[in-house]
Amino acid sequence: MNTALLVLSGGQDSTTCLYWALDRFGAGNVATVTFDYGQRHRIELDCAARVAALAGVPHTVLPIDTFAALGGNALTDAAVAVQPGVEAHTQLPNTFVPGRNLIFLTFAAALAYQRAIHHLVTGVTQTDYSGYPDCREATLRALEQAIRLGMDYDLTVHAPLMFKSKAESVKLARDLGALPALAYSHTCYNGQQPPCGVCPACELRAKGFAEAGIPDPLVERFRNVAP
Amino acid sequence: MNTALLVLSGGQDSTTCLYWALDRFGAGNVATVTFDYGQRHRIELDCAARVAALAGVPHTVLPIDTFAALGGNALTDAAVAVQPGVEAHTQLPNTFVPGRNLIFLTFAAALAYQRAIHHLVTGVTQTDYSGYPDCREATLRALEQAIRLGMDYDLTVHAPLMFKSKAESVKLARDLGALPALAYSHTCYNGQQPPCGVCPACELRAKGFAEAGIPDPLVERFRNVAP
Repeated sequence: MNTALLVLSGGQDSTTCLYWALDRFGAGNVATVTFDYGQRHRIELDCAARVAALAGVPHTVLPIDTFAALGGNALTDAAVAVQPGVEAHTQLPNTFVPGRNLIFLTFAAALAYQRAIHHLVTGVTQTDYSGYPDCREATLRALEQAIRLGMDYDLTVHAPLMFKSKAESVKLARDLGALPALAYSHTCYNGQQPPCGVCPACELRAKGFAEAGIPDPLVERFRNVAP
Repeated sequence: MNTALLVLSGGQDSTTCLYWALDRFGAGNVATVTFDYGQRHRIELDCAARVAALAGVPHTVLPIDTFAALGGNALTDAAVAVQPGVEAHTQLPNTFVPGRNLIFLTFAAALAYQRAIHHLVTGVTQTDYSGYPDCREATLRALEQAIRLGMDYDLTVHAPLMFKSKAESVKLARDLGALPALAYSHTCYNGQQPPCGVCPACELRAKGFAEAGIPDPLVERFRNVAP
């Protein structure tokens, strides 16, 4: 029986959190869940499975077809291109999927409930939160309360990177032994491997590794491949 | 542009709430959303569409394939039969889908966000709540807060039947002119029309109409059909 369930996107932050959870709850006590929600870049699902396999943890993929039906955002709607900056009517990036993290955590909580798991772990962070309001501490605590009351279940939501800068996250990943797995994590908004290096997500990731003074193992992996 | 969005299951309470919303927000200002989440009884979807058409309101159906993937409850898993009483390990009816109303309201909020709608209406009630913790006022207020913070959006969740008995709801339905639509609502856990009359949902509905001293128009409709 597992103790903790991690929402694993296959990105840098959730991969780091997987090693935080292994450190906190112990090997053999952590499971992961990834959502197949019609994301434009299927490579995220492959990276999540690869990272879970590297860490030796059980991995569940749950489908969510609702966001694609809702449409209208750049992460699930192929008709909408990723744009820099914010939308005039919402003041949010057009990669914002309304309620995405609320839904992910609630479905993860349902899975945790079924498995008698009482700890959820998520990689969200408000420090570099790119304007996403569902990544803030206040949102997380309100949702935790809604889940506890709505499922009548004792559940704690952990967000170990909430107040860390990207550079601090990179150092934590190094200390936790997460760098080899980070070589297989995925960040690029354009869905490219090797990463495009120019989209906002690639820029943020590169800045974090640079400030930490640690080479990004994902970039290194492709640097070592003969062209 | 609509003002309010109602989560319509096609059951007695949400049908009553549709007429409450029409009264409160005005004809032409109310829209409905129904979730196709793999419910065992597809008749619910037909009833919801019929009720929305009778009321003359726009109706959206959104799919959710996640609950079926989670499995393990009597409302979506064909391998699990509806049982009376509660499960030993959860002390909840085995029709409990963990987080179902949290998910419904969050997706409804995402749709409301996209349409610039600021009022959600739901038929949940804690008076006759059958042990479902996601139908309680405290849960609803916590979730409302999580949605407001998570979407950075001003949204109010209305639950007009929250503290009403089934008899009070029936009287309200009569006063709001909802009885003709209630003739096409669906309640039976066994998915039968005419209703089976013996499942807990049918019993609760019959008790409410009896206590209100009003004949159930759904029962009347089938009584008037020659066998």
